Amino acid sequence: MSDTETPDQGCRNLRWALALFDGLVRGGVRRVVLSPGSRSTPLVLAAQRQPSIELTPILDERSAAFFALGLAQASARPVALVCTSGSALAHWFPAVIESSESGVPLILLSADRPPELRGWGANQTIDQTRLFGGFTREYHDPGPAEEGTAALKAIRALGLRAALVSRGPRPGPVHLNLPFREPLVPGPSCTAEPLGSFESAATGPHDGPEARSSASDQVRCFDTPQWPQGLTTLRGGRGIICCGPMTPSDAAAEAIFACAERLDAPVLADPLSGLRFRPAPTARITRYDSLLRNPEAAAALRPDWVIRFGGTPVSKTLSGWLEDIPSILVDASERWSDPTHDVIVRIAADPTAFCRLLQTRIDRDAHGLWIRRWTDAEQTLDRLAHAFLEHSPWCEGHLIAGLLEGLPAGDGLFCANSLPIRQLDTWSGQSETPLRVFGHRGASGIDGQSSTLAGLNAGRTEPTRGVTGLLGDLSFIHDLSGLLLMERLDRPCIVLNNGGGRIFDFLPQRGLAGFEPLWRTPQRVQPDALARAFGLAHRSVDDAAGFAQAWAEAIDAGMRGEPAGLIEVRLDADLSLRTHRAFWNGVREQSIIESE
Amino acid sequence: MSDTETPDQGCRNLRWALALFDGLVRGGVRRVVLSPGSRSTPLVLAAQRQPSIELTPILDERSAAFFALGLAQASARPVALVCTSGSALAHWFPAVIESSESGVPLILLSADRPPELRGWGANQTIDQTRLFGGFTREYHDPGPAEEGTAALKAIRALGLRAALVSRGPRPGPVHLNLPFREPLVPGPSCTAEPLGSFESAATGPHDGPEARSSASDQVRCFDTPQWPQGLTTLRGGRGIICCGPMTPSDAAAEAIFACAERLDAPVLADPLSGLRFRPAPTARITRYDSLLRNPEAAAALRPDWVIRFGGTPVSKTLSGWLEDIPSILVDASERWSDPTHDVIVRIAADPTAFCRLLQTRIDRDAHGLWIRRWTDAEQTLDRLAHAFLEHSPWCEGHLIAGLLEGLPAGDGLFCANSLPIRQLDTWSGQSETPLRVFGHRGASGIDGQSSTLAGLNAGRTEPTRGVTGLLGDLSFIHDLSGLLLMERLDRPCIVLNNGGGRIFDFLPQRGLAGFEPLWRTPQRVQPDALARAFGLAHRSVDDAAGFAQAWAEAIDAGMRGEPAGLIEVRLDADLSLRTHRAFWNGVREQSIIESE
Repeated sequence: MSDTETPDQGCRNLRWALALFDGLVRGGVRRVVLSPGSRSTPLVLAAQRQPSIELTPILDERSAAFFALGLAQASARPVALVCTSGSALAHWFPAVIESSESGVPLILLSADRPPELRGWGANQTIDQTRLFGGFTREYHDPGPAEEGTAALKAIRALGLRAALVSRGPRPGPVHLNLPFREPLVPGPSCTAEPLGSFESAATGPHDGPEARSSASDQVRCFDTPQWPQGLTTLRGGRGIICCGPMTPSDAAAEAIFACAERLDAPVLADPLSGLRFRPAPTARITRYDSLLRNPEAAAALRPDWVIRFGGTPVSKTLSGWLEDIPSILVDASERWSDPTHDVIVRIAADPTAFCRLLQTRIDRDAHGLWIRRWTDAEQTLDRLAHAFLEHSPWCEGHLIAGLLEGLPAGDGLFCANSLPIRQLDTWSGQSETPLRVFGHRGASGIDGQSSTLAGLNAGRTEPTRGVTGLLGDLSFIHDLSGLLLMERLDRPCIVLNNGGGRIFDFLPQRGLAGFEPLWRTPQRVQPDALARAFGLAHRSVDDAAGFAQAWAEAIDAGMRGEPAGLIEVRLDADLSLRTHRAFWNGVREQSIIESE
Repeated sequence: MSDTETPDQGCRNLRWALALFDGLVRGGVRRVVLSPGSRSTPLVLAAQRQPSIELTPILDERSAAFFALGLAQASARPVALVCTSGSALAHWFPAVIESSESGVPLILLSADRPPELRGWGANQTIDQTRLFGGFTREYHDPGPAEEGTAALKAIRALGLRAALVSRGPRPGPVHLNLPFREPLVPGPSCTAEPLGSFESAATGPHDGPEARSSASDQVRCFDTPQWPQGLTTLRGGRGIICCGPMTPSDAAAEAIFACAERLDAPVLADPLSGLRFRPAPTARITRYDSLLRNPEAAAALRPDWVIRFGGTPVSKTLSGWLEDIPSILVDASERWSDPTHDVIVRIAADPTAFCRLLQTRIDRDAHGLWIRRWTDAEQTLDRLAHAFLEHSPWCEGHLIAGLLEGLPAGDGLFCANSLPIRQLDTWSGQSETPLRVFGHRGASGIDGQSSTLAGLNAGRTEPTRGVTGLLGDLSFIHDLSGLLLMERLDRPCIVLNNGGGRIFDFLPQRGLAGFEPLWRTPQRVQPDALARAFGLAHRSVDDAAGFAQAWAEAIDAGMRGEPAGLIEVRLDADLSLRTHRAFWNGVREQSIIESE
């Protein structure tokens, strides 16, 4: 038996794939990232024929998926991935996990062999069914291509559905596994066009990033017996609003700040909260990771309640300090960001809707003292940090200050795990200058960071301009395939080269036998050699002036249409560890809070 | 709540992990490949304390898993992988799939957060339960470390079980998901030793690669109504024995050849069958991919029955020609290698046991004509190939001839998908010189090839000596992390650089709009630049003399303890396509078979 019995099978495959893309396009898909293969040919042919689709080929499926993740994050649109059958789609898995955990819309289109070849030892054939387990919002296998209007309507509807499901109310990946029979290429007489009647409706309400907010006006509360009065408790006591990683709209940001004012509460803004680098009309706190190391301050600033938005904050100091404080968690997704199990009211709501509701329900007398205590502390820490950096040896703190100074307003910054995002958290302070900070705090891996950076740049939309990368040397080397995409970047990728995974220097593993090869794992390949191999400019710096110059050169290169290349920041990790400890010890011993 | 409530938790974790490794070691594990992380610390500490365990750190988990796969393939022992929690283990997935499909024993030890942190937004925490779905033989989550002899016995037993299950009768990956509570590092007063009584029995029957053959004397037949006489049919008609990818013992190889002689049948030996490059006491055929393109030969050599061993052969020509011929499939695993659905008797048996059984049951009069027809055809094709290469422009055929000439007896060759293994199939011919050929025909991906090559070299045991790699340029660039491991190799990695995925040139996709960027996908980074970046010697060749010299230099470098480096073979892909077509056309038009 051969799977070439039907002479027009190639044409049937193409028409089927075209109908699928009709649905995907109507659902807002504009970009397709594909990795090369044979079985996926009908999907590629169909995507090519969709005028509103832009195709990007990327060899390594793992890199392709992280690139797509960045595209989707920056463009706020679902992005489709295409690959061939076999182990190819398994390479998507790390990015699929991050997409699921951080709520980024991806459509996974895996080509497959038809059912009669699965499980019979055919070439490049594995069981692709539900390959990503619980990490996809939906999984479908519509079977091989069929003819006829009803069949084409069905596959088109599936495309639209996949795009809409990926966009919310719980955004994330959707997997369509698509078997194709041979031949995969249509004959010369094949005419394949999109279904006309559907096309005319293609500019309907599904066709934009804004469709996602449809559920935003619903507020559902899950009260627990421990707090019988529910939200009315917010009328008394001293509270804080803690904002972890999230992507708030301008309206949501305004609503949160307004709500904070009404509640007489400061806003603790994570670097990935979308609230740290924009104008803030009310008290915003960003130095808490250092501040709360001071025991006196940690005690004096302890609140009676917390309202939490977004994911778990980057700062471990903050999370530890929040333990045992009653929390209200507000989240429209189905996440339960509560590793310390302190949430006593969980509210399934969009932050905007929740904050507006609170505005109408809560009335408090703001006496200002509580807020002033926080803002005074933030200013003191600001002063301490600046004074410390003025006299300390060059470290990540100087680099981050220089970077934030150099970044044009409206730019983006992609900050990698695991040390860079903590360093940004510690040293950035706050700013009125708008800056969009991206990071992977879904699974918090060090994987796929360069590929994501390339995707963020390729998917950026107004008002986000170029996106600069801030990576550690290990995450940079973990994703070598991402280097193949860097020649497209007009902002530099900054690599903090401190000789391995120096986060372990801050952990109890430091000093164990075999610490260097088994935990810190410095790599022998160097950023300059990699830059040369991939045709990228490389600039190496180890002080503030050097960084400023390298930054200016890289930005200029980007302006001229050349790749901005790498800036390697050489750091003495042992010195850096001592410097950080000196700063934190200084903060610990300082008198920060005036007595009440 | 904090997970540091118990002061000796670090010590408890270590004792627990030590007991697990007691079991793994007793089950034959000697190598552990780890990627850096914090949560996995107790596993690394325990592995360090096992004197019979060798630890290899590899940064990129994807590369680590393919390295482990190669280690396990070459050493015929289960290899353990260790990584931290979060998306880290998802990078293992492509290698886990290949391990499952090709039956290579891997033990997947993923560290995890304890249950109270899962699903609550804790850092680097995802749902790791059954992450690899149906691709693992067993999955266990024994929960956090417990104290007491019974608990330690349980986890030690699980280690032994994991190793034994991974080794058969259906070898493959076993996943243990291991949650650890903080602190992860034991305090200074912690004493942690292996359980004594178990150690004394550590040299039992489980402690070697040979344990796997325990089920080898069982033969179970599944007859079907279409062939009521079952195996007695083999007494009549003309048959062939077709051997796909497998790893036969010397005894199995001898049994297959003896059985072939008794059945008056030639042995068609795939390049990965383990039967092509070793002494053959009976008729062995290897030129079938070219031979069967000749219509006259394809008709005259058509058998009445086929006995199949191993996986699906590499040659599509062979598979197509075998369609509709009644087949007997002999396989001790649970694979059903039968994409054309021609198997009418499936025998669950080790090839040795089956062949010995046949020897006692089948009696045939061998008249020799059928065998002679095949051996004559093989010799004719041999002659045609040599004559053709003598006058044709430099192509893969010359390279493979030169390589096989250069390879020392007893060496290994790892041949990548997708074109190199087909080129080897077409051009190698057969040889009495022992050579072990490795390849990934489980999922047949182009992924992880350099990392696997490094693992094969690290795991090689007598009598296999060094393992040379033969890769295409795309598979070489798909696995850039593998370059970090190449400085350990004393045999070269040969890269066939023909400017992209030239297998598509042989397929109907050739000439489609966008063919170059969307299917062939040539990459801009070049092997010489990569070699420089990773500190490897690079030799570029484009003729037979150049290859011979580069080969000699690379082998010499390896002998001196230096990395053998890369040999880049530059090929003109268009010329190569024309050359192959000319050869096949020549074969097609030749008169190969004398009339009966």
